[in-house]
Amino acid sequence: MSDVPGLAINLATVRQQFDLKAAAEACARHGISWVAPWRDQVAATGIAETRRILDGNGLRVTGLCRGGMFTTDPNAQDDNRRAIDEAVGIGATCLVLVVGGLPRGSRDIVGARRTVEDGLGTLLPYAVANNLPLAIEPLHPVYAPDRACINTLAQALDLCDTLGSGVGVVLDTYHLWWDPNLLRDIARAGEGNRILAHHISDFLVPTRDLLNDRGMMGDGVIDFKAFRRAVEAAGYHGPQEVEIFSTGWWARSGDDVLSTCIDRFHSVC
Amino acid sequence: MSDVPGLAINLATVRQQFDLKAAAEACARHGISWVAPWRDQVAATGIAETRRILDGNGLRVTGLCRGGMFTTDPNAQDDNRRAIDEAVGIGATCLVLVVGGLPRGSRDIVGARRTVEDGLGTLLPYAVANNLPLAIEPLHPVYAPDRACINTLAQALDLCDTLGSGVGVVLDTYHLWWDPNLLRDIARAGEGNRILAHHISDFLVPTRDLLNDRGMMGDGVIDFKAFRRAVEAAGYHGPQEVEIFSTGWWARSGDDVLSTCIDRFHSVC
Repeated sequence: MSDVPGLAINLATVRQQFDLKAAAEACARHGISWVAPWRDQVAATGIAETRRILDGNGLRVTGLCRGGMFTTDPNAQDDNRRAIDEAVGIGATCLVLVVGGLPRGSRDIVGARRTVEDGLGTLLPYAVANNLPLAIEPLHPVYAPDRACINTLAQALDLCDTLGSGVGVVLDTYHLWWDPNLLRDIARAGEGNRILAHHISDFLVPTRDLLNDRGMMGDGVIDFKAFRRAVEAAGYHGPQEVEIFSTGWWARSGDDVLSTCIDRFHSVC
Repeated sequence: MSDVPGLAINLATVRQQFDLKAAAEACARHGISWVAPWRDQVAATGIAETRRILDGNGLRVTGLCRGGMFTTDPNAQDDNRRAIDEAVGIGATCLVLVVGGLPRGSRDIVGARRTVEDGLGTLLPYAVANNLPLAIEPLHPVYAPDRACINTLAQALDLCDTLGSGVGVVLDTYHLWWDPNLLRDIARAGEGNRILAHHISDFLVPTRDLLNDRGMMGDGVIDFKAFRRAVEAAGYHGPQEVEIFSTGWWARSGDDVLSTCIDRFHSVC
């Protein structure tokens, strides 16, 4: 039985405090019923053992983080097929894809975007054959050079339209909150039945580090309730998944972080 | 006579090295014929004296930087009317507007955008009466919380359509390079005759500071030639204006910075 049925914890949020087993036990102890592990955490534990640990703690898996990197990893297809196998092995709902930014030394973002589309098209049949949805995560434009050249929800949905079924999107507040077309495009995502996950973390002002200074919900500028209203109006009622990369929160105790996630989930999300 | 007729220097680029007079003399010495001063530089020099200095050095003014801040400055209208007077006084081509982000403590970006539209609508008649175009600068989404809630070119052009004549846009490579609709929207800006300025600086990877780590052209990930081709195809043939906020470049000699701007302008822009 879950005390906070609508909450998921992306295990990156407590990656410095807990290995996968300790994280699963802590989440269970706090009444959390959904988690999202990262591939390195699963690799360190083993797929079968990961599944045993998650099942034993009554935990379900939102998405496995992460595949993608079509533009920068020469072995992206092999690696993504392995990621699909792993996601299936641990019972994940989807595989989260961070698609990759510019290849080293390149300034051709238009070309990078074509590479992503081609890479997704090549990967998709394997995902469909394994009944494992691919979840494209549009990343904030500040990550366009080095993380993901898919930077708006509209762009991700255009890709979904091109690719057909078996692919959807991750709606992450941190990446999307600023978009002037946000409400329109969340509705569009719902109409296409494309919403596979809803990630939450806050955008801090100032942001001291672009990678590892994400905020706990309520500490930044995002209106989580408005975002969630739009997501639910679009027909998605799955968990909200806390994904916070933060040197500050990684320095706190894991139980403290999880308690705060639950408090903020109830008060501001 | 100018040695580099297509180049403008935004004086923020050398603000730590030169006051307005020294900057004007240095630009003239390097064969540069366009500058964009900031209001604090003009205020420290005086409007009439600024004009004498610029005229005496054969310099024309692209935009005066900057007005705006409709969402956060309770005296925005008065201050923007003064900025228009100053822009007229120094013979500027336009007044650059950074429209403002979220009011302190607010999470209502939709409301902030309405405030900007209202503020622009209120200001516009004074600008039109003074024959001074207002140049909306869409800023990179990373500045949405604290600088400008107009974050895409499409959004700025929608505002222009709403407001009518007397208002246009600044196309700044740093802010816009990542936009998946960039080419479409630059063409749209040209069709509406909305392009008032073209700013250039590069996006560095990694970016170590969100405010003061902009890159010299060629040092980052932006394809300047492709951007400029689109701008010229849209009918804008005015100067490219180097605007680099950078603690690194501010630590170099002003002449070194200007020489590098000219070199890179010729080689990568």
